[in-house]
Amino acid sequence: MNAEIITIGDELLLGQVIDTNSSWLGQELNKIGLRVHYKSAISDSREAILSSLFEASKRSNVIIITGGLGPTKDDITKTTMCEFFKSELVLNQKVLEWVQSIFKNRNLPMLESNNQQAMVPKNCSVLWNKNGTAPGMWFYENGVAYISMPGVPFEMKTIFEEEVVSKIKTVFKLPSIVHRTFQTIGIGESFLAKRIAVLEDILPTHIKLAYLPAVGSVRLRFSAFGENKEELELELQAIVAHLYQLIGEAIFAEGEKSIAEVVGDLLNVRKKTIATAESCTGGFLAHQITLVPGSSNYFVGSILSYANQIKINEIGVAETTINENGAVSEACVIEMASKIRTKFKTDYALATSGIAGPGGGTKQKPVGTVWISLATPTQVIAKCFQFGDNRERTIQRSALAALEMLRQELLNA
Amino acid sequence: MNAEIITIGDELLLGQVIDTNSSWLGQELNKIGLRVHYKSAISDSREAILSSLFEASKRSNVIIITGGLGPTKDDITKTTMCEFFKSELVLNQKVLEWVQSIFKNRNLPMLESNNQQAMVPKNCSVLWNKNGTAPGMWFYENGVAYISMPGVPFEMKTIFEEEVVSKIKTVFKLPSIVHRTFQTIGIGESFLAKRIAVLEDILPTHIKLAYLPAVGSVRLRFSAFGENKEELELELQAIVAHLYQLIGEAIFAEGEKSIAEVVGDLLNVRKKTIATAESCTGGFLAHQITLVPGSSNYFVGSILSYANQIKINEIGVAETTINENGAVSEACVIEMASKIRTKFKTDYALATSGIAGPGGGTKQKPVGTVWISLATPTQVIAKCFQFGDNRERTIQRSALAALEMLRQELLNA
Repeated sequence: MNAEIITIGDELLLGQVIDTNSSWLGQELNKIGLRVHYKSAISDSREAILSSLFEASKRSNVIIITGGLGPTKDDITKTTMCEFFKSELVLNQKVLEWVQSIFKNRNLPMLESNNQQAMVPKNCSVLWNKNGTAPGMWFYENGVAYISMPGVPFEMKTIFEEEVVSKIKTVFKLPSIVHRTFQTIGIGESFLAKRIAVLEDILPTHIKLAYLPAVGSVRLRFSAFGENKEELELELQAIVAHLYQLIGEAIFAEGEKSIAEVVGDLLNVRKKTIATAESCTGGFLAHQITLVPGSSNYFVGSILSYANQIKINEIGVAETTINENGAVSEACVIEMASKIRTKFKTDYALATSGIAGPGGGTKQKPVGTVWISLATPTQVIAKCFQFGDNRERTIQRSALAALEMLRQELLNA
Repeated sequence: MNAEIITIGDELLLGQVIDTNSSWLGQELNKIGLRVHYKSAISDSREAILSSLFEASKRSNVIIITGGLGPTKDDITKTTMCEFFKSELVLNQKVLEWVQSIFKNRNLPMLESNNQQAMVPKNCSVLWNKNGTAPGMWFYENGVAYISMPGVPFEMKTIFEEEVVSKIKTVFKLPSIVHRTFQTIGIGESFLAKRIAVLEDILPTHIKLAYLPAVGSVRLRFSAFGENKEELELELQAIVAHLYQLIGEAIFAEGEKSIAEVVGDLLNVRKKTIATAESCTGGFLAHQITLVPGSSNYFVGSILSYANQIKINEIGVAETTINENGAVSEACVIEMASKIRTKFKTDYALATSGIAGPGGGTKQKPVGTVWISLATPTQVIAKCFQFGDNRERTIQRSALAALEMLRQELLNA
């Protein structure tokens, strides 16, 4: 059973947009037992779309098409799919009402081009797009499914997860694949590989292990292929137990939870609260915490102190501490954490102070040097990290490291 | 003159690696006047490579192939290219010496698989890979150039820049392409299209306009194709002037600058400072500001007040304001902005208070309701927005809208 992905849009060919949709789709299709064997990116042109659909129909059972469904003139996927299937556009009343309700809720007038979003090919089933105005479309002809979705990532992903997966599973008989993914933090990819080499060496050939590194963390995905799902799950169960023996302390979640969600769950269960005092992370740590729905249960607030005067006047760091040690120092970050904890009356507090760069580095404290402190009801600890010379990644890694310090503390609390 | 890109490797199809090579190549080819009209990703299989080369040779003048040139068993690009051209592998003495020298310098033993790197098809010209052991290859047959390079990004990029570009320019007479990209904010894609319809309708056929939407903003890209670069630039100049007449106030940058960078430039030039008081954005607004290198010149700090008590005790909002109007209100957000401006002694201050969701909405103030306020040396203004029911996007849009309020103010200051 073969799948292929066609992405439509000159911006992808010109390289102005990096295509993250198709790697996400590759992973998701793989999870349900569909192997992507071909991907192509083509321009917003009728001829290119028609010939790609024709070629794809000869080699693939499931064809995913993204892009070209917007309301503007360069969006011609819908009419061209219609032409490919010798169908015609008809008004879908339900979609029209949906589009109208979106504009009404935002107090915006409807344009004729928005009404056009409700016109769909007669031979398709509409795939509901609850995040936008362009519906997805499902076509099925001669044993091949054609699935057209908008290119906007969050619209595409929701349509795929909520509408497409179940339809594919209904129409096609797929082999069993069982995946288990673990998120690790604090160990680099090659060291991780060394730590689990003894497990990797004895994996049977029908179970594959993939390393999926991201900034500051590495995901490990085991994929077991076979006939019998229950057997595969049992086999994986034993492997997972072995994995936890080898690197258990570095695994912060199974599945896709962020470390901020994991920490949020721990705080909720323990009915504890948290505040942050941030310098180099500039609000990114608090942003990670507050991205989690319901974080107002445990997150109280922060003071972001880019200027030293704010550290002194607002957080309450002693001027002498900064004068004697600098703002990027163990003494300063420890005062930031303990003072904000007292001031904001929370159980825990995290503080960051570092040199994100590109400027500001010295020989003693090069760019990438970051001090992180955690204040708890009983103690204040601090650690120094070296995160390298990329500003954005240093900010991201600092926030992850801070959350990991809190996670370890909460696990032992 | 058409180019296409073929990337070889299962890791791309499985989505384990995001393909950044092909967007980079798309941009670089475009710069020299070669339009990429097709991209494909295929697996490390002889059949897939042969049929892709065959199809590509029918539609493209320049075919760039990356990947599958390593020393391991799954790397079969070289032998398959050899088969495609009915050529044979011969030893290239210069490459052999190069590979040997690399191993010698690193004090590593040579394996037989490393010697194989020096075997190249008889009919190719070697493209020197000074960063690795796998040489690139240039084939030319029936007016079509086939360029095979390793998939490792820094090896591929250097080979392309130092070896491929000059060869392409020697063999092909290339047209000119000129691009200009503008970033807009505050107008949805369909409204933008309506506002500039009068311009779009009179665009000559050799100038294309693309809409590239992102969360909260839309990029507009004009691409002009022709013979004479100076003429194209002049033509675009007139179009751009027309564009500014139509939607000038919504354009925050030409090129790839973020709105936080644009605002940072304006603050720097005017020698002004900024602070934020954030509730629903939870630090994301400050994060956008502090992502910009050098932002410590103008960004002083923030107070993030998720809890009302922090709004009252730390920012200085009057308790009665919150009791009478709620925290998500014009009165509250105005006090947040003006108090933080005074407290942090800055020229400007931005404040946000809203309901990011999913919980906390009411009939009067549904999820997505966000109040944003800007305090300046002479006044305090506030606006109410409705950003919909996705938490992450509401946070992102709120930050963009706040920065846009500040940008408009700075432009007129």
